[in-house]
Amino acid sequence: MSSLPNTAYSYWVSQNVFSMYQMMFAIITPALIIGAIAERMKFPAILAFVTGWMFLVYFPLAHMVWGADGFMNGVWNSSATIKAIDFAGGTVVHMSSGWSALVLCLILGPRIGFRKDAMLPHSMVLCMVGTGMLWVGWYGFNAGSAVAADGVAANAFATTTIAAAVAAFTWGVAEYIEKGKPSVLGFCSGAVAGLVVVTPACGFITTTSAVIVGILAGLVPFFACTKLKAKLGYDDALDTFGVHAVGGTLGALLTGIFADIEANPNLATNLKDLVGNGLWIEQLKAMVLTIVMSVVATAVLGLVIKATIGLRPNEENERIGLDLAEHGEAGYNY
Amino acid sequence: MSSLPNTAYSYWVSQNVFSMYQMMFAIITPALIIGAIAERMKFPAILAFVTGWMFLVYFPLAHMVWGADGFMNGVWNSSATIKAIDFAGGTVVHMSSGWSALVLCLILGPRIGFRKDAMLPHSMVLCMVGTGMLWVGWYGFNAGSAVAADGVAANAFATTTIAAAVAAFTWGVAEYIEKGKPSVLGFCSGAVAGLVVVTPACGFITTTSAVIVGILAGLVPFFACTKLKAKLGYDDALDTFGVHAVGGTLGALLTGIFADIEANPNLATNLKDLVGNGLWIEQLKAMVLTIVMSVVATAVLGLVIKATIGLRPNEENERIGLDLAEHGEAGYNY
Amino acid sequence: MSSLPNTAYSYWVSQNVFSMYQMMFAIITPALIIGAIAERMKFPAILAFVTGWMFLVYFPLAHMVWGADGFMNGVWNSSATIKAIDFAGGTVVHMSSGWSALVLCLILGPRIGFRKDAMLPHSMVLCMVGTGMLWVGWYGFNAGSAVAADGVAANAFATTTIAAAVAAFTWGVAEYIEKGKPSVLGFCSGAVAGLVVVTPACGFITTTSAVIVGILAGLVPFFACTKLKAKLGYDDALDTFGVHAVGGTLGALLTGIFADIEANPNLATNLKDLVGNGLWIEQLKAMVLTIVMSVVATAVLGLVIKATIGLRPNEENERIGLDLAEHGEAGYNY
Repeated sequence: MSSLPNTAYSYWVSQNVFSMYQMMFAIITPALIIGAIAERMKFPAILAFVTGWMFLVYFPLAHMVWGADGFMNGVWNSSATIKAIDFAGGTVVHMSSGWSALVLCLILGPRIGFRKDAMLPHSMVLCMVGTGMLWVGWYGFNAGSAVAADGVAANAFATTTIAAAVAAFTWGVAEYIEKGKPSVLGFCSGAVAGLVVVTPACGFITTTSAVIVGILAGLVPFFACTKLKAKLGYDDALDTFGVHAVGGTLGALLTGIFADIEANPNLATNLKDLVGNGLWIEQLKAMVLTIVMSVVATAVLGLVIKATIGLRPNEENERIGLDLAEHGEAGYNY
Repeated sequence: MSSLPNTAYSYWVSQNVFSMYQMMFAIITPALIIGAIAERMKFPAILAFVTGWMFLVYFPLAHMVWGADGFMNGVWNSSATIKAIDFAGGTVVHMSSGWSALVLCLILGPRIGFRKDAMLPHSMVLCMVGTGMLWVGWYGFNAGSAVAADGVAANAFATTTIAAAVAAFTWGVAEYIEKGKPSVLGFCSGAVAGLVVVTPACGFITTTSAVIVGILAGLVPFFACTKLKAKLGYDDALDTFGVHAVGGTLGALLTGIFADIEANPNLATNLKDLVGNGLWIEQLKAMVLTIVMSVVATAVLGLVIKATIGLRPNEENERIGLDLAEHGEAGYNY
Repeated sequence: MSSLPNTAYSYWVSQNVFSMYQMMFAIITPALIIGAIAERMKFPAILAFVTGWMFLVYFPLAHMVWGADGFMNGVWNSSATIKAIDFAGGTVVHMSSGWSALVLCLILGPRIGFRKDAMLPHSMVLCMVGTGMLWVGWYGFNAGSAVAADGVAANAFATTTIAAAVAAFTWGVAEYIEKGKPSVLGFCSGAVAGLVVVTPACGFITTTSAVIVGILAGLVPFFACTKLKAKLGYDDALDTFGVHAVGGTLGALLTGIFADIEANPNLATNLKDLVGNGLWIEQLKAMVLTIVMSVVATAVLGLVIKATIGLRPNEENERIGLDLAEHGEAGYNY
């Protein structure tokens, strides 16, 4: 029994607390991929894919970006090769899962009966409730990444709120201009997009910058989810690519542009010369590495599983529905 | 970059934290009005109304009551004109939204096909889940208004819990006496009524007083929502008037009666002579001002919007349902 | 007004905080019994039963186990008769409610039309949402029982997470072996079972032990809920016996086996000689006392209420459904 908690890998908090906190990030990330490929991948294939993906993509990335000696940890590692910054998971969580989701969607192909404009959400009530819980929980990720209840956490809380609110409103305005009717689904999508885009930036930027981040977060993922998706024709049930990949990539870049020592004095430790002056180039390097790792690993894993276990259920099972065919249960029993 | 957080407007916490906390109150308040006028007000009219209402009613009231130099801030402003107290929003949140909701309901008129006794909630499951989340979240408002994790916060937590529990039980007993069947909806209504009534009082009264507050909170709003509403015939979908206006008004008065320096030593700073001795007259003044501001501003705003943008959708859209007509989406897609 | 909060009954926190915290345990416990006997007990009988049960079982047990001078409080009371330990409610919450639920189910008899293999949950969506909220809330019980934000709380947080995750996975594997299809309901049941079993142990064991606790929590309650229940044929709608009684009993025993001073230095104060060396015998004594108290009190209360108020509604009301018959409302109004 040591008299002080061991914090060798966990900055200034105990390893128990830090590892639980990190596991929260680790468990949410593959869920984003699974949302994208809903209803058309065999359960054993999902288990195999997620297990492999965690070791090939998530754990390495998390260590590179957030490990005290990570080679992309620009904030705390003075000898980082790529001096990039990512406060709460733009590269580690959203880019990694979003780009992987796109690759997996393309390898799998669309659901039987997929129609670009007719896959409405089952329940807007659950969308709204889920968005509310996600928004609240997101503060744990974004403000929590200060790993302290300090001014940096308070600032991250404020920038997160502002970006999410502005993006939700902007997405609604874009819908109104585009088709005359702003929707609750649009509000929810915009809120999540704002949360995604501000995630890497939240603890590094001022609240004023958060407004600009919010506007861009309402516009760019909106076009990705409506125009780009319709054009490319992939079947992404959760818009993981449009919201998380596009949003995470945008956010990683904006973090490099808007990072400000005023908002986070820790930036002055190792990045005094880069902030406001070429940090975005370091961000680009991290973004490219993240995309390459995610795309290559997902492609390899996807094709290996396709060749061995197989990816898709047989057509009969897919038509019956995987809940019944693979899990022997229905969503509702009246 | 200042070495200490700027707290000029935010008591002893940083402005980032305090402003985020205040925005939480600001965003919940107009939602109560919108609940009352559900399904019969055009979306652009709602946006215009809420925007105007925040500037004409909410922001001035919040500053008057909670601003360090607010002219109704009896606790902290030694030269307050009206020496009233409101711990977590009896006047600012519940009276303002509740009285405004009544006025807006009267200006709008009832929904097409409205029948006094047949507008049942769509889903008791969602009522119950929502009440649970509301009750938990309410601790953020009530205990949080101590702006510290101290004994005042702990007392506010306890009085809030007791008042809500007693009011939920009392409302059920009233239903049982009235019609022989206590309902889950009654339990939920009673819990919310208890939370509303104790809101201005929670940080100023003892737990014993909270029991009396809870009993009155179960009875008075119960009669407002059943007898008074049936008599007056207005269509208030969320019972914002019966629960929030009546409850908030009751709570503001009871706060003046039950406030106790034993429960909150801060009352001794500027209100030593008033507590237990005429504080309720100061409360009456604040209540009258709040009602006048809310009623007048809502009437003016409502009539201006009616004359310009228009308040009600056309009959066809209202019959189709505003979700489909104005937002192009349905609650459920099977 | 005392200058320091009174903490005579509440360890090192204020009585307001501690009593609110204790009431949280008190309110969740009878809810577990009510889940078991759903849809076949008159509402007045439930009110009478719960009131009596709290005074005969819950309050005495809570005082015996957690009171500073409790005669089963092995951790803090140096002169405890039974030197048992229960971090967050294995005996007080889960064994007491679980064993009482079985007795009450047997006294009541099954629902009209009960079929062992056809009482599916109404909505898997609500099961999943509820399990998620329960899991998150459970940290309040388990980590919170350290009554401090310290290393013991952090360890309890970690062991709780690990046991729940491992048990959810194990239950799914057991289902897969047993019937070829792991289900969401199985995952949820396993998670709750893991949370139950680790509850008495969480603040006393290491994270390594939590893995073993999780595996046993996935297996033993699984067999109780499938094999044992099918064999005995009682109608327990929430599997309160299979999950909470069996799981709580298992957890109380495992706590005696795995408790480790390394994980919780407070064990060294009064239990230095017992930990790892006969503590499980003290646990057995506490388990027997808890079962005897729960079974006897529930049997007496149940039979007294049966002979006076009556337990079951008349057949017509039960067929209509108690929501309509006793509360005059339906779950959904379309």
